[in-house]
Amino acid sequence: MTARIIDPTAEAAGFRAELRAEVAMLPEPLVLAGFLTADEGPSHTYAEYTRRGCDDVGVRFDLRRVQRLDAEAAVRAANEDPGVHGIFIFYPVFGTGQDRYLRDLVVPEKDVEGLNSFWIRCLYENRRFLDEARTKKAILPCTPLAILKLLDAAGVMSQPAPRPLGGKRVCIFNRSEVVGRPLASMMSNDGAEVTSFDVDGPQLFLPDAEAGAHRVEETRVGRAEALATADIIITGVPSREFPLVSASEVKEGAVCLNFSTLKNFHEDIVDKASAFIPRVGPMTVTMALRNTLRLYRNSRR
Amino acid sequence: MTARIIDPTAEAAGFRAELRAEVAMLPEPLVLAGFLTADEGPSHTYAEYTRRGCDDVGVRFDLRRVQRLDAEAAVRAANEDPGVHGIFIFYPVFGTGQDRYLRDLVVPEKDVEGLNSFWIRCLYENRRFLDEARTKKAILPCTPLAILKLLDAAGVMSQPAPRPLGGKRVCIFNRSEVVGRPLASMMSNDGAEVTSFDVDGPQLFLPDAEAGAHRVEETRVGRAEALATADIIITGVPSREFPLVSASEVKEGAVCLNFSTLKNFHEDIVDKASAFIPRVGPMTVTMALRNTLRLYRNSRR
Repeated sequence: MTARIIDPTAEAAGFRAELRAEVAMLPEPLVLAGFLTADEGPSHTYAEYTRRGCDDVGVRFDLRRVQRLDAEAAVRAANEDPGVHGIFIFYPVFGTGQDRYLRDLVVPEKDVEGLNSFWIRCLYENRRFLDEARTKKAILPCTPLAILKLLDAAGVMSQPAPRPLGGKRVCIFNRSEVVGRPLASMMSNDGAEVTSFDVDGPQLFLPDAEAGAHRVEETRVGRAEALATADIIITGVPSREFPLVSASEVKEGAVCLNFSTLKNFHEDIVDKASAFIPRVGPMTVTMALRNTLRLYRNSRR
Repeated sequence: MTARIIDPTAEAAGFRAELRAEVAMLPEPLVLAGFLTADEGPSHTYAEYTRRGCDDVGVRFDLRRVQRLDAEAAVRAANEDPGVHGIFIFYPVFGTGQDRYLRDLVVPEKDVEGLNSFWIRCLYENRRFLDEARTKKAILPCTPLAILKLLDAAGVMSQPAPRPLGGKRVCIFNRSEVVGRPLASMMSNDGAEVTSFDVDGPQLFLPDAEAGAHRVEETRVGRAEALATADIIITGVPSREFPLVSASEVKEGAVCLNFSTLKNFHEDIVDKASAFIPRVGPMTVTMALRNTLRLYRNSRR
């Protein structure tokens, strides 16, 4: 089998066309303020992607270059500014726990990345709407959401709602608070059985119809077993010491996705996977823009 | 000079006597729920300290042993339980970013550790009261608060209010979101010039009367210069690779405090320091108990 390579830019095009049409009909320009502290590196590249995405769908992108120690004041000012509809911080700013402080500083009403504790709690508690009338949808973190959209493009979300991943086994290498853990929760909410690996050991995320969401258990499953049985393999390991996932470890026809900026799969993966998604970036930006529109609409309801 | 060794247990005694008297006059028992997931190690020791502190001042300590994956549900239940006045989580639970999720899960009204984003933001924004009438005092994180109380016992907070640390130079090795950064902010709010070292480089926290608080700047000051000029040296480095601070590096008469569970000072420090505070634990527990009482009172106003 030779894997279909899925290009996130191409897959995002449909979502962008839809967004472009909706943004054009708004009574005012949608303004996204971006905060960038680095002169180069991944956050810089990501800001450039975001600019292109904004241009593409007609969102006004106001990228502000700030010193890292000025980021806090700048974000607080943007929180208060009625002319700013969404806030996008390009991490890392400090590269320490202080970045988490910044994430929580953004008011949920402008948090297009969906990384604020408020939204993350909505996700874990499976609260999908903010109001009783179910008119204001909760925001989902944009990278996990982008990953789900790309997996959908690969054809794996084939079971009937509300469990489109029913019966699927998933293996995720990363359990960060910003991607891996919310992603594992979302996928098990959608019916998958997810083995999640991180430095503090493996965990099993299982669908739980009774709880209306999922439950998490400790497990002793190792890498070899999890990889050999997984229908979907997702990597996001920011370390060159991570042993690349190779064709010999995975099941014929597995769908493989990497969201790390580093390579996490061996090149031979395309000989055995049915689909390979080498990056997520452009879809993440698209989902952040979708969140911007959603937050704007929530604020007007 | 031979340093006076300051024992946090002895210094906490006065605060505890005061607390004991106030707790005894409350109309109901004050209940602190503790959550412990480890069978041994620092969190276990800390829970034991807390039990002793509670017994000492007459707070009812309800220590609950839970599996780490059950901690979230247990904390959420305690948040809702009117019979629980304060919540104390003994970290590490996961030892990853997920611990920060747990910290924010505790409702601010029961967060006796003062580690919730809500309280940390009050601190950075220098909001000392929750209400206009200034009857409900904001909670301060208990370890930085304990450190200030011990430094006060060492006699360094000698300048007039509101700048008891006016003119003092401070050097802190640790800029974590739970101790080092709030501590640097509190000390510069109190008038000190603080050089803060962490993996992402040194920063300078300076008193800023205009801002009514402090400001933070990047600096190129190195360890040698900062140590040689510091009146107060505080260490909290959880690594055996940290080169111990030795007498030859510090100013005659400096006040030295270590809050790491590891040794961060060379034994010869006592030959040159005027005071040495080798640990903080019992005072931290005392401040958490003080926060418990404060939160209880805030809830009744």
